[in-house]
Amino acid sequence: MTIEKLLNPKSIALVGVSTKNATFQVGARAVFDHLRLHGYQGRLDIVTREPATIDGIDSVTDLSRLTHAPDCVLISVPAADVHSVVEKGLALGSRAFVVLTGGFSESGEDGTREQARIARLVRAHDAVMLGPNTTGYVNFANRIALSSTSRVSAELAPVGDVGLVVQSGALGSGLLEESVRNGIGLSHLISTGNEAVTSLVDCIDHLIDDPAAKVIALYVESFREADRMIAVSRRAREAGKPIVVYKAGRSDVGRRAAAGHTGALVGTRDAYAAAVRQLGWIDVTAIEDLLPIANYAARSGAARTMAVISISGGYGGCVADALAEGGHVTLPAPSARTVARMRDHVPAFLSASNPIDVGGTPFRTAEGYAECLDALADDPAIDGVVIANTPIVPAWAARVSDAAARTRARTGKPVSVIWPSEIFNGEALAALRADKVPVFGRVDSFATAVAGVATASESRIAPSRLLREGREAGWSTAGSRAEEAGRALDESRSKTMLKSLGVRFPTERFVEGRDVEAVLRAAADVGYPVTLKGIAAGVVHKSEFGLVAVGVPDADGLSAHIAAMTESADKHGLDFQGFLLGETVRPGAEVIVGLGLDPEFGPMLTFGAGGILTEIMQDAAVRLLPMDAGELRAMIEACRIGKVLNGARGKAALDVDALVAFLETLAGLAPRLGRDFAGVEINPVGVGAAGEGVWALDATVFAYGEGT
Amino acid sequence: MTIEKLLNPKSIALVGVSTKNATFQVGARAVFDHLRLHGYQGRLDIVTREPATIDGIDSVTDLSRLTHAPDCVLISVPAADVHSVVEKGLALGSRAFVVLTGGFSESGEDGTREQARIARLVRAHDAVMLGPNTTGYVNFANRIALSSTSRVSAELAPVGDVGLVVQSGALGSGLLEESVRNGIGLSHLISTGNEAVTSLVDCIDHLIDDPAAKVIALYVESFREADRMIAVSRRAREAGKPIVVYKAGRSDVGRRAAAGHTGALVGTRDAYAAAVRQLGWIDVTAIEDLLPIANYAARSGAARTMAVISISGGYGGCVADALAEGGHVTLPAPSARTVARMRDHVPAFLSASNPIDVGGTPFRTAEGYAECLDALADDPAIDGVVIANTPIVPAWAARVSDAAARTRARTGKPVSVIWPSEIFNGEALAALRADKVPVFGRVDSFATAVAGVATASESRIAPSRLLREGREAGWSTAGSRAEEAGRALDESRSKTMLKSLGVRFPTERFVEGRDVEAVLRAAADVGYPVTLKGIAAGVVHKSEFGLVAVGVPDADGLSAHIAAMTESADKHGLDFQGFLLGETVRPGAEVIVGLGLDPEFGPMLTFGAGGILTEIMQDAAVRLLPMDAGELRAMIEACRIGKVLNGARGKAALDVDALVAFLETLAGLAPRLGRDFAGVEINPVGVGAAGEGVWALDATVFAYGEGT
Repeated sequence: MTIEKLLNPKSIALVGVSTKNATFQVGARAVFDHLRLHGYQGRLDIVTREPATIDGIDSVTDLSRLTHAPDCVLISVPAADVHSVVEKGLALGSRAFVVLTGGFSESGEDGTREQARIARLVRAHDAVMLGPNTTGYVNFANRIALSSTSRVSAELAPVGDVGLVVQSGALGSGLLEESVRNGIGLSHLISTGNEAVTSLVDCIDHLIDDPAAKVIALYVESFREADRMIAVSRRAREAGKPIVVYKAGRSDVGRRAAAGHTGALVGTRDAYAAAVRQLGWIDVTAIEDLLPIANYAARSGAARTMAVISISGGYGGCVADALAEGGHVTLPAPSARTVARMRDHVPAFLSASNPIDVGGTPFRTAEGYAECLDALADDPAIDGVVIANTPIVPAWAARVSDAAARTRARTGKPVSVIWPSEIFNGEALAALRADKVPVFGRVDSFATAVAGVATASESRIAPSRLLREGREAGWSTAGSRAEEAGRALDESRSKTMLKSLGVRFPTERFVEGRDVEAVLRAAADVGYPVTLKGIAAGVVHKSEFGLVAVGVPDADGLSAHIAAMTESADKHGLDFQGFLLGETVRPGAEVIVGLGLDPEFGPMLTFGAGGILTEIMQDAAVRLLPMDAGELRAMIEACRIGKVLNGARGKAALDVDALVAFLETLAGLAPRLGRDFAGVEINPVGVGAAGEGVWALDATVFAYGEGT
Repeated sequence: MTIEKLLNPKSIALVGVSTKNATFQVGARAVFDHLRLHGYQGRLDIVTREPATIDGIDSVTDLSRLTHAPDCVLISVPAADVHSVVEKGLALGSRAFVVLTGGFSESGEDGTREQARIARLVRAHDAVMLGPNTTGYVNFANRIALSSTSRVSAELAPVGDVGLVVQSGALGSGLLEESVRNGIGLSHLISTGNEAVTSLVDCIDHLIDDPAAKVIALYVESFREADRMIAVSRRAREAGKPIVVYKAGRSDVGRRAAAGHTGALVGTRDAYAAAVRQLGWIDVTAIEDLLPIANYAARSGAARTMAVISISGGYGGCVADALAEGGHVTLPAPSARTVARMRDHVPAFLSASNPIDVGGTPFRTAEGYAECLDALADDPAIDGVVIANTPIVPAWAARVSDAAARTRARTGKPVSVIWPSEIFNGEALAALRADKVPVFGRVDSFATAVAGVATASESRIAPSRLLREGREAGWSTAGSRAEEAGRALDESRSKTMLKSLGVRFPTERFVEGRDVEAVLRAAADVGYPVTLKGIAAGVVHKSEFGLVAVGVPDADGLSAHIAAMTESADKHGLDFQGFLLGETVRPGAEVIVGLGLDPEFGPMLTFGAGGILTEIMQDAAVRLLPMDAGELRAMIEACRIGKVLNGARGKAALDVDALVAFLETLAGLAPRLGRDFAGVEINPVGVGAAGEGVWALDATVFAYGEGT
């Protein structure tokens, strides 16, 4: 309940309020002005350096002089003084703090140490703390503008449904402006700052329980608590509150979430994309779309079919194009009955196709447009209706806003509006917003919203194992080592380790050194045709050095390959260690499988086209673990190579059942990640014909230090 | 020069002006009101049904009663009367018409016939005509609001650089609103309507010569004159006027631009994307971005490196992410000298990395921010600067707008602003716009603009053959048959035809019927190993019916395959015609090559990964013809299979020279498209080792009717 005192305090003390009169106030003084401007109703105390009366409120010069315990203490004093102010607040009995002051973990080692010292103090008292280095928050429903952001000094949007949490105060300021400009109401804006104690996840957790927030919108720079993030995603699903995310850091090329070949297949965003898919979030790729999409998600259920009604065939076409690209919605033709109802108001040139270009005719009568909208919304084959308008005669515009709100209320179907006409049709747009009809200023934002809500709805209906069951505690803490890529063990050691963990490889023998006779004897044991590999220290991509020969038919051929490989090793100055000899298997397809740790999201599995096609096909899928067998099968089918495995162009299907079982074995190693090894890459995995099984044909274990 | 009279008339007659007083006027009466409202300076006559005086102007009741020839006659009378009004105008000596009336080609066969009759009349007099079914145009520079669009009744944007041509009047209305809302000035807005006489290309042609338009922005539903579009693109390049295009119809699934396997590879947008690339256009995928991007293109040269300066690390990061995704710009670290200049105004916590997060400090002195901006713009490694701001204290905002305009003017480098703060920082944004600094309200719009200008600039510096030389007249008129996909000829006839045109296939023999002995004799001639194919009427994908055997080593094997194929043909009820026997070639890679006609852009070439990997790799490039050898080589490299051809992972390169020569042979057949055949698909084309050449291994010709 302390977080309730932090975000909904009945009494506040502001420490570090400036007594200067300035046109532009900062810090605690700005917070004071904003609280007063937006009508904070609780008790407000201020702590100033010199005694003063500001806006009718007498200050004290030291927090200790207060004789009550404020629910929340906001601190804006020099970094070195923050610890002692927190101590004073705790002594009063306060258990919630907001620290605006910067110069902590964002500024170097000293700041990091001091921040940790303050965090220990706060935690020791079971208290909560937003920041340091936060701009505070605005609780719109309760008119608590506890924020230093200058944008809060101007008009704010009306109270609304979107609970917004940001990991950048300035971004939050930009989103405040967007909320006003787009007429989208917020329930909260919380800037988390350095998250020394109270984190992004804590704020989400609170918003799930706060009835004012119907949707949770996030600007995230980094996810720091994967296990808890999974847990709150489960709670949000149960509460029916969509989570809409803009994730920064797409161009962060320095990250190494995956080593070996997998590294070339896995982008920095893939683990995030997997989280979006498996946790039922809605992803937003343009920051300006975060609020419109969250607003839509708060007010509209999933629509798999939609009617586009436009006064312009051209603009309706733009919407149809964008929805088709979004890929989650179809535009069915309205039923004959629907068309008949519309015909009363639209002449014969109306096409029954969708998008419906009604032109201007339905506006000529008072009820014409409303009837068209009603007819579409009543059509059982149509899940939702979107009105796409260019600027229209203002007298007509009122008919659109009236009809949209009425049809939406009557049918409960998502009726939305795309109508970039703020100047010419501003009144109609304001009326629509007041009636809670989602209004979009861009076609692409709408299409993204519709696709996002449809996808998230699928996740709610058929949740992933991660969303159903969560993750065992501690899995993701292994992620603390995720920035360490690990050292590639050589093939022999990699295989020995994986075999001990239950991974099946073809029969093989290792012959140390360059003993040709010993290799020939081993080949006779294994049985021709054999596969020969030259092992050299540090060489991962053997074929680049000519160190792989597959299907060698006899001893003569083998002798020739042995000679060629030793020559190549010498030419390239390799530290040659010996020959690995194995049975030759002839898989119908080769795939790559990788197990790794994402720094933000923990254990993840990569699957894709493998062998020599790995880089050329660029065909892979990434998912977070754990997964169930159905998800593993779907992951295979999500790749183009899945078509080959399931039998493409008249060829027989390969042993997909065995491949799924193989993936389950590998996925089962996930709890060892971050402990026994940093990652595993098996490439290629040969997939045989149905019933033949699969073989791990080459593998690399990435270990910490010298490995195990 | 008649088009000059159409778009810049010194005298106008409006025919069909309503004399009713209404709150909402339409047709010629709306045009009259708009002309007067926006201060038309020339002579204005009106033709009404009953004599009247409107706004001080006396009407006539018949166009014939005028005693002069108006430069331009605008017509808004019933469709059946349009022809006679045009006749009267021609009789007066007028040679330019604007026809608002609808009900012509957009409404069915009768309308199409009547439209053609009017067009013949206009053309016979060397006159021009906008429409029918147009909303007219606005010539901003000369204050000629010859438009019926209701949006023209309100405030318009100031005169600007963007010449806008639209194939939808309502879309044009929407873009007018956008121009006002974004403060982006237009030189023209022309709605082309049904284009019975004066076309999109005619309007572009005019804008290239009109100095008021510095960039040409298009909303296009369909390109109808490919050869002329290529020609005006060449002229626009010479005039230094970028062409920025939003192309509707991405979801037009009904189109068949390519048949056979190529059809699965070639999207409906691929020919358009090829035109964008080869003709140096700038493509816009969101209609709302058309004007901001055109405005940027008019005012900013190409930038390959850019500095992002932001008061918010988070927002700067959003811009860096979007630019990285755009892929045409890098963000270099500022030089030591640049950092030193900035250090005077920004304390030590400033990171020298790019994006540059200056925080609020430089605003504390009068010159701080301007110095930072100057330092970045003076850095020789930085081509352009973008200021990315969230809402900031209004006193600071003026410093941003002053500095941006000054630095831009002084250095000539593109300085742009992304600053979605219309409410809080509206004054600063207005000042920036007045100073011609491009202002963006969204990060993604800016990134698209930068990438588009960079790409178009490459096309100007290293133009494609199409842009350098154009296309021989008549090539694209063949496109009139492009909607006909043609009928697939069987393999034998396809090969015979292609061989006669110079395409090389492996040695082969056709044996009619099921004569096993004849097949064995032919095999002995060709020489083992042989490739055997079963030929059945109408079967294109032979391997799906088990009708292909490659590398059959001897007569026993051949007999077995013959038996299996006849059995399969019978089982599937195929019309089996005989066996095709050929030398077995063992290509290092298989590719697909297609030659086809795009309905809008004419002859095009498709290249990609072929054989059994065609659908699985989904790896193809499409280009318009003609192309030169360098472009063909670049097209190969644009595909992932290009890596295999050029030697991937230590393997030797294949015979790319021979492949380029092969593509040249095929491309040389382009003038026969639409005459001798509808398309050609060669799949696979086997590419041998360097020096071995290439072989067409299977081919289908798509012919008209029964083929040639």
